[in-house]
Amino acid sequence: MNIEIINIGDELLIGQVVNTNASWMARQLNLEGFKVHQFTIIGDSREQILEAFQEAAERCEVVLISGGIGPTKDDITKAALCEFFGSSLVFNEEAYKDVESLFSRRGYKVTGLNRQQACLPEDCTSIPNRNGTARGMWFEKHIPAAGRQGKTIFVSMPGVPFEMQAMMTDYVIPELVKRFHPGAIYHKTILTQGIGESFLASIIGEWENNLPPSVKLAYLPQPGIVRLRLSGTGDDKATVRSVVEKQAEQLSEIISEYIFGTDDDSLEAIIGKILRAKKQTLGTAESCTGGYIAHLITSIPGSSDYFKGSVIAYDNDVKEQILGVMPETILKFGAVSSEVVTEMAIGAQTCLSMDYVIAVSGIAGPGGGTNEKPVGTTWIAIATPDEVFSKQFLFGDNRDRNIRRAALQALNMLRKNLVGQ
Amino acid sequence: MNIEIINIGDELLIGQVVNTNASWMARQLNLEGFKVHQFTIIGDSREQILEAFQEAAERCEVVLISGGIGPTKDDITKAALCEFFGSSLVFNEEAYKDVESLFSRRGYKVTGLNRQQACLPEDCTSIPNRNGTARGMWFEKHIPAAGRQGKTIFVSMPGVPFEMQAMMTDYVIPELVKRFHPGAIYHKTILTQGIGESFLASIIGEWENNLPPSVKLAYLPQPGIVRLRLSGTGDDKATVRSVVEKQAEQLSEIISEYIFGTDDDSLEAIIGKILRAKKQTLGTAESCTGGYIAHLITSIPGSSDYFKGSVIAYDNDVKEQILGVMPETILKFGAVSSEVVTEMAIGAQTCLSMDYVIAVSGIAGPGGGTNEKPVGTTWIAIATPDEVFSKQFLFGDNRDRNIRRAALQALNMLRKNLVGQ
Repeated sequence: MNIEIINIGDELLIGQVVNTNASWMARQLNLEGFKVHQFTIIGDSREQILEAFQEAAERCEVVLISGGIGPTKDDITKAALCEFFGSSLVFNEEAYKDVESLFSRRGYKVTGLNRQQACLPEDCTSIPNRNGTARGMWFEKHIPAAGRQGKTIFVSMPGVPFEMQAMMTDYVIPELVKRFHPGAIYHKTILTQGIGESFLASIIGEWENNLPPSVKLAYLPQPGIVRLRLSGTGDDKATVRSVVEKQAEQLSEIISEYIFGTDDDSLEAIIGKILRAKKQTLGTAESCTGGYIAHLITSIPGSSDYFKGSVIAYDNDVKEQILGVMPETILKFGAVSSEVVTEMAIGAQTCLSMDYVIAVSGIAGPGGGTNEKPVGTTWIAIATPDEVFSKQFLFGDNRDRNIRRAALQALNMLRKNLVGQ
Repeated sequence: MNIEIINIGDELLIGQVVNTNASWMARQLNLEGFKVHQFTIIGDSREQILEAFQEAAERCEVVLISGGIGPTKDDITKAALCEFFGSSLVFNEEAYKDVESLFSRRGYKVTGLNRQQACLPEDCTSIPNRNGTARGMWFEKHIPAAGRQGKTIFVSMPGVPFEMQAMMTDYVIPELVKRFHPGAIYHKTILTQGIGESFLASIIGEWENNLPPSVKLAYLPQPGIVRLRLSGTGDDKATVRSVVEKQAEQLSEIISEYIFGTDDDSLEAIIGKILRAKKQTLGTAESCTGGYIAHLITSIPGSSDYFKGSVIAYDNDVKEQILGVMPETILKFGAVSSEVVTEMAIGAQTCLSMDYVIAVSGIAGPGGGTNEKPVGTTWIAIATPDEVFSKQFLFGDNRDRNIRRAALQALNMLRKNLVGQ
């Protein structure tokens, strides 16, 4: 069974609003084992809506629509649905009472527009909206032009995210599950750091070629991170799960050195969990990352349990005066060097009294590069209660990406040390 | 002229990745006076891609595609394009050299997959990718089945946002402008900080009602900032420009106290320009913002000219030991207080030898709030060469938004002081 999602609204097509409705709907449907075949995003235009309805009916047994059923003039989805199904509007007493009671709770007055909203196509099942005035509409009809024997389901919902979401959760998904008994589906995402997409692909190529047909692999790259998503389908939930987990295990063995977590993990959250459990503390001494590592760490609620603070030593004066880096070290080796980043880490560990310190010094660019140390050159040091170690990296030539890649690389170096990897 | 955007990728259809590419592309096209007719989002499936290409060609003169041209097996857009246009792949020396030089800059080795990526359809114009290995492809062909006399343009780009964005900006949009000469369009964006969307709307309502029909206003809210974009259209560029500028001037008079810049300005860039001209220096002493202000400041290339460094004093120990905040001050007034944030600012000014310091202490949440100081309570102090002043704010209950709003508010307090506003 295929599902198409249609989102209607001019604001989507000018890019003013990012379409989060489609991805939310798809995510929920996927969790129940449904597969979404296509998203179609169109404007508030009668011709476009009718064309999209027709094409969707030819492709999919279920068409889920959001947007265009509000009270204003530009909302024409309901009229288009009537035209598409040859249906006409009937005043719905129950829908009107819902609006009246919602408005009286909020202290508003019902207007003529709201009376109009309570008019619904005669041949649909209306779906209550516990967060707004526009009811959903469920059509289940044989559409000869769709070239299909059985019925096609069209569901129209509001475009306001939390109104649509409540309707999907309360009504639409349970009804779809009742009718279609979807197969089992299971996703597992392996998160890697420190390796590019094409290198990963060449390392895991043989394993990938031997994947069973029921399991699909997707590469999801972000700056500094590549996520590998395994998706399995089948009839039995436990079997699908075990097939995917077995493949994930095999994959994990091949690229273990690059893996830092699974699914919704983040490096900063993983590190936080470990440090909280160990009752140990963390700080940073940052030059080129300019506070971005501290920002990532403190984006985690409750990070004050283990994060004490940082010194952002952009200027060499700060490296020397606060972190105690020796002027001679900077003079002899340069600010971007193993020696300086090591002294930064030890200095922060001492002056901030912390168990672990991440220290970074590099050339983020676009300026500041030399032949010996081009833009992207970055030294990272980790100070632990037992040792200090450092490593050099050469990232790219884009400032924002260099900052991000250096931060993720540094967090992963700390994580590896914490887990003894 | 109509444009359709097709985004290809299974990860979009399961909702794991929100489709920001379509809205970004639509926004840029709109800025140049182009109208996007439809977004179509499909999976990495040959049949689906071919069907979507066919339908898009029937609807639109220009089809912009992102996704599915990476080096991995699930990327099949290039093969589908070859099939659609009856074209075959030819090894492209120039494309291969680009990959080689990108990889040698990064110290990587070219793999067989990269050689494969340098094979491009013989009848397309290839578009350089300055941020990655997959070239874009520009097809301009008569498609009989599209039912149109002239040629249809198909452009295939990578799905990685910053690769696609550079290609759109450098090549695709300029080429479209050359071919289609969209009407004159002029945008002016007024940037405000410290006032919400609905308050703005009530203050500027009368002015908005009197806007000429050729000028449209859009509210573009972000956490802490509301951008007001005026877009004028017409035949003559100079006339359109002067009509919009006149309205922007009127608007600026009404809300002058909230405006910090126009168009692509950012608080951190404005502050940087002023400090560089004055040859003065800046640093931060951050508690709840956790380095985010330093990160914003150092995201500006060349910020090392005026930014010296920061102390992130999450823990009170760090406030006392590095910044010299008196333990009694914390005990008496609490860490989130005018007194503490003032001592933080002065302490940083002294220990980091800086002209200006931004200091912030607050409760970002979700934990840590009390009846007297609920989550969102934030004190900001600015130390200048002449004085220190502080102010209290109450933001909301969302951690990420509180961090962002505090950072922008603090930067704007400094900017106002620097410009004597």
